[in-house]
Amino acid sequence: MPTDPRHLFDDATRVTAGDSCWQGKTSPDYWAFVGPFGGATAATVLRALIDHPQRSGDPLALTMNYCAPIAEGTFDLDVRLVKANRSTQPWCVELSQGGGEVATLATAVFAERRPSWSHRPAQMPQARPFEEIRPYPDVAATWANQYDFRFIEGFPDFRGRKAEKPESALSSLWIGDRVPRRIDYLSLMAMSDAFFARIFHVRRELVPIGTVSLTTYFHVGADDLADENITRVLATADAKIFHRSYGDQSGELWSPSGRLLATTTQIAYFKA
Amino acid sequence: MPTDPRHLFDDATRVTAGDSCWQGKTSPDYWAFVGPFGGATAATVLRALIDHPQRSGDPLALTMNYCAPIAEGTFDLDVRLVKANRSTQPWCVELSQGGGEVATLATAVFAERRPSWSHRPAQMPQARPFEEIRPYPDVAATWANQYDFRFIEGFPDFRGRKAEKPESALSSLWIGDRVPRRIDYLSLMAMSDAFFARIFHVRRELVPIGTVSLTTYFHVGADDLADENITRVLATADAKIFHRSYGDQSGELWSPSGRLLATTTQIAYFKA
Repeated sequence: MPTDPRHLFDDATRVTAGDSCWQGKTSPDYWAFVGPFGGATAATVLRALIDHPQRSGDPLALTMNYCAPIAEGTFDLDVRLVKANRSTQPWCVELSQGGGEVATLATAVFAERRPSWSHRPAQMPQARPFEEIRPYPDVAATWANQYDFRFIEGFPDFRGRKAEKPESALSSLWIGDRVPRRIDYLSLMAMSDAFFARIFHVRRELVPIGTVSLTTYFHVGADDLADENITRVLATADAKIFHRSYGDQSGELWSPSGRLLATTTQIAYFKA
Repeated sequence: MPTDPRHLFDDATRVTAGDSCWQGKTSPDYWAFVGPFGGATAATVLRALIDHPQRSGDPLALTMNYCAPIAEGTFDLDVRLVKANRSTQPWCVELSQGGGEVATLATAVFAERRPSWSHRPAQMPQARPFEEIRPYPDVAATWANQYDFRFIEGFPDFRGRKAEKPESALSSLWIGDRVPRRIDYLSLMAMSDAFFARIFHVRRELVPIGTVSLTTYFHVGADDLADENITRVLATADAKIFHRSYGDQSGELWSPSGRLLATTTQIAYFKA
């Protein structure tokens, strides 16, 4: 699937090929509170794998363990094909900076998506049309301003007082790149981390948070995704529990036509 | 939390400490169709980490990537603390046999579970009492016979004809060890992979399957779990999609008192 090298997202997730060591860089356009947007880092890791000459098959699963803050600038990706068999490829990627300790530890599995019986028990959420919803306004974190968020349910309004009682953790929204870009695996990966922290929704206030571990599963082959030919997804996110400084999130990314493209789950630190 | 060294589960998940290389072994008591029960393997990996002298904090997240079948016998666990900071520890574990290629690639995160604000949006499923439900009968896979499954919803009956139309992917059931054993992190880890494959439920037939990647999050500190002092969990599992030879599963493990202990998600290969 062709990408537009002039798009900010493609610049932010660019990689320079090496043998086992690839290189990427943080982008001021995709910056979060204390480091790069984790979704951009995840997409950069995925790009290195997709571009790798030994890669075969489509992305099936990617787990990112965010171990330490990433400083502004370049980073190295130590990319290793752990074992290749007939139908799946497990990979391990370690991100570090300046020869220092590992800042992000990732594993991924690529797979041949062969034809099979299909069945989708999950129901697509109901959604008002994208065009009828006003875009979410700009915020302080630059990464969020690269996206066009249109909230159907769970509009996050932090201008008032914090919630007296916990509010709903559920959000459903359209997500597209603000400068439209065709949805590929890289954008799905980044968008799977593009939800505001669930605790912000529940408490209606911003508190210190950080994703510790994120796992995304892809449910489409590359040709399925190319056939969709879309620039936005319908996304939902929810949480089950916040306890002892950690809370979870699970989410779904749907195509406008009703195809479940990816599911994601994460566990995040919070201070509250 | 003390474990009973005479319990089959503790024997099946026993590890021998090394420096960075630990050793485990498969158990005929926890055998699946073509290899060891993945939940026992996951619990063995977790045991090596919990027992590791450098470990600090409680298990927060564990991802298992099953790369190749594990043969009967001993295996090596290459255990590596990737980075230690003040509050979390990411680990990488590679399982191999006889100096061969990696058969299982795991990452884990341990964390200090400090006191915080708590909130649980998830609802505990309704359940009939354990004692009122008859145990699930023995099956061909020995691992399943080490558990006492009591189905509340989604009883898997494979004696009849396969389903004409897809049936529900949802199950809820009590899970305990058949020889009662106090629930610890190891049993939660194993039980998070102790659901029958979702496709068996939906198609009401057994087809070739294999878990590719499994992630479990723990939502309790060691003291929370010890306070529960339980020998069974109330478990639910569901699926969102089966497509192009892979299907997902997500699940929850609850204490009888209504505490959400762990959540889990996996993606599995199927042939159908």
